[in-house]
Amino acid sequence: MPRTKTGIVMMNLGGPATLDQVEPFLLDLFADREIIQLPFQNWLGPFIARRRTPKVRDLYAHIGGGSPILRLTEAQGHGMVERLDRIAPETAPHGLYIQPRSEDALRAMDADGVERAIAFTQYPQFSCSTTGSSLNELWRAAGRLGLEHRFQWSIIDRWPVHDGFVASMAATVREGLELFPVNERDQVVLLFSAHSLPLNVIDRGDPYPQEVGATVHAVMRDLGFSHPYLLAYQSEVGPLRWLGPSTERVIRQLGARGHRHVLVVPIAFTTDHIETLSELDREYGHVAEQAGITYYRRAPALNEHTGFMDALADIVHAHLTIGAVHSSQYPLRCAGCVNPQCRKVLNPVAAVPGGR
Amino acid sequence: MPRTKTGIVMMNLGGPATLDQVEPFLLDLFADREIIQLPFQNWLGPFIARRRTPKVRDLYAHIGGGSPILRLTEAQGHGMVERLDRIAPETAPHGLYIQPRSEDALRAMDADGVERAIAFTQYPQFSCSTTGSSLNELWRAAGRLGLEHRFQWSIIDRWPVHDGFVASMAATVREGLELFPVNERDQVVLLFSAHSLPLNVIDRGDPYPQEVGATVHAVMRDLGFSHPYLLAYQSEVGPLRWLGPSTERVIRQLGARGHRHVLVVPIAFTTDHIETLSELDREYGHVAEQAGITYYRRAPALNEHTGFMDALADIVHAHLTIGAVHSSQYPLRCAGCVNPQCRKVLNPVAAVPGGR
Repeated sequence: MPRTKTGIVMMNLGGPATLDQVEPFLLDLFADREIIQLPFQNWLGPFIARRRTPKVRDLYAHIGGGSPILRLTEAQGHGMVERLDRIAPETAPHGLYIQPRSEDALRAMDADGVERAIAFTQYPQFSCSTTGSSLNELWRAAGRLGLEHRFQWSIIDRWPVHDGFVASMAATVREGLELFPVNERDQVVLLFSAHSLPLNVIDRGDPYPQEVGATVHAVMRDLGFSHPYLLAYQSEVGPLRWLGPSTERVIRQLGARGHRHVLVVPIAFTTDHIETLSELDREYGHVAEQAGITYYRRAPALNEHTGFMDALADIVHAHLTIGAVHSSQYPLRCAGCVNPQCRKVLNPVAAVPGGR
Repeated sequence: MPRTKTGIVMMNLGGPATLDQVEPFLLDLFADREIIQLPFQNWLGPFIARRRTPKVRDLYAHIGGGSPILRLTEAQGHGMVERLDRIAPETAPHGLYIQPRSEDALRAMDADGVERAIAFTQYPQFSCSTTGSSLNELWRAAGRLGLEHRFQWSIIDRWPVHDGFVASMAATVREGLELFPVNERDQVVLLFSAHSLPLNVIDRGDPYPQEVGATVHAVMRDLGFSHPYLLAYQSEVGPLRWLGPSTERVIRQLGARGHRHVLVVPIAFTTDHIETLSELDREYGHVAEQAGITYYRRAPALNEHTGFMDALADIVHAHLTIGAVHSSQYPLRCAGCVNPQCRKVLNPVAAVPGGR
């Protein structure tokens, strides 16, 4: 095997690949204060995780026995790396490594002889709860393995309006529209749905909602504003107040208002996962049916969309060409930041002069 | 005088032009349930308005004895109409009329022989609290005057990422950056500030925050993401919880975090008004000083910026060329809409086939 010149870590929250991984996955999730903050977390985290396990196992059992995130991210990543080797021979060969198994990824990079590494978030819009916490975990994993100085890092921390991403999203909307009878297609309301955040995170200044808004507008522009649209937020959990409007409630309200055609579009994830296959399709599908929405459909996730693989390769290629360590936005902490770990770059590569 | 072929109503919240107009302005404002919802509004509205009058009079006294909105909107409108007469002879002469004096505007249009009328919001991003309520008031005023069928209407209900608007905003940011010492300019944090909304409005599905997010992103793209930036929301009032993060609190937090250079950029208004001249400049200027921000500056409002007058003319010209009655987005009520008046178009002009 040739020595890998550029290692790319695709960062994602991941998910349990099998039903037996559900409990450990939830235990990890509810233990991580960068993702979920609970009072008495050491005690309450495991309690909630264990209590939720049977229900969540059941949800995963209904979508094929596990999360498809890892498999789909791998497929996207292989498509990306293959394209990069072709369009960017100067940084080839490119190697693919996947979070959330940070330690496995870092060990494999070490074994492959990687020196130049890119932490590439798979969340198009930045939030401290997603990309921020994933980066912090990556740097901690490197510390645990004693690999702090082994790689020279740069990061791709957001890409909410990348042209290829936007065009791919618009293509999934067009595919979704084909699921409606052709003569009723102009009655469709597009309902963009993103994962919500607790309002205390928003009030700290997390940039997520404004970047989601930018993505939605860019996608609608690509579609020529062909249909009316709404943006709502899903998956709120626990006692805190979350950013609205709530996707579930909006679906009920659209039904009550007489809308019979709704296309829901997941706008903040790039693969199918429990929030699309279970929450949007099954749970909210049931809500839509009760609300009298005759045609409730979901736009397909980007998954193995070839245009999206082109986009991923282009994002990395542009990043390498510009020679940036991170976006100009990354170093700015949230105004109300409470996490001193945030916004670190471990052992950053020397920035190209003039690069940003 | 030639007969006016196309009448353009620039819609704005307005403001008291003199100190004696402060009380009637506040009485109107707190009586309007489309802008502010209060329990026992008929009693509590006048009570709050009268109680606030002395303080608000004092604020206006400090910014020259009245709101500059009307004067500046007139200047912008004259620039727009003059350009339109030049670039769009087929719809000339164009006449300028200004809200919030809806009845005066409609009477003048009647006297000028206007048949084709455009309601043109001066709020770049749509909210039911601003553009929505202004439109409803315009239609009601036409009803009060018996002019429901006198004009053929179309509306320009939003333009959050219009190229000329975005370029003009970016120009004001560049002007603002010149207020900092040249060798410290790269330390500036851009703080975009928009008027906040109560969370119950957000939870109904008001599109405002996502459109503000789209504007901010487009402006930053125009600026080549030259500086880190934040978006915050100002002017929350009363007991309800409002959309955050709060501009005032963000300023305090940036100071506490060691930032010494902040350029605040009003992103949701097009002229100076009490929220820029008094709240941003005086009130938050004082907050910034206390927080240790050595250089707290504000980007100029668009006001009489000639590029912005070009943009206004282009927005109207494109609207007339497309032949739309409204944006494709306008007819879609908020999912949780509680106002049956919303989304009306009074006596709409016949849409051009193929126009949107």
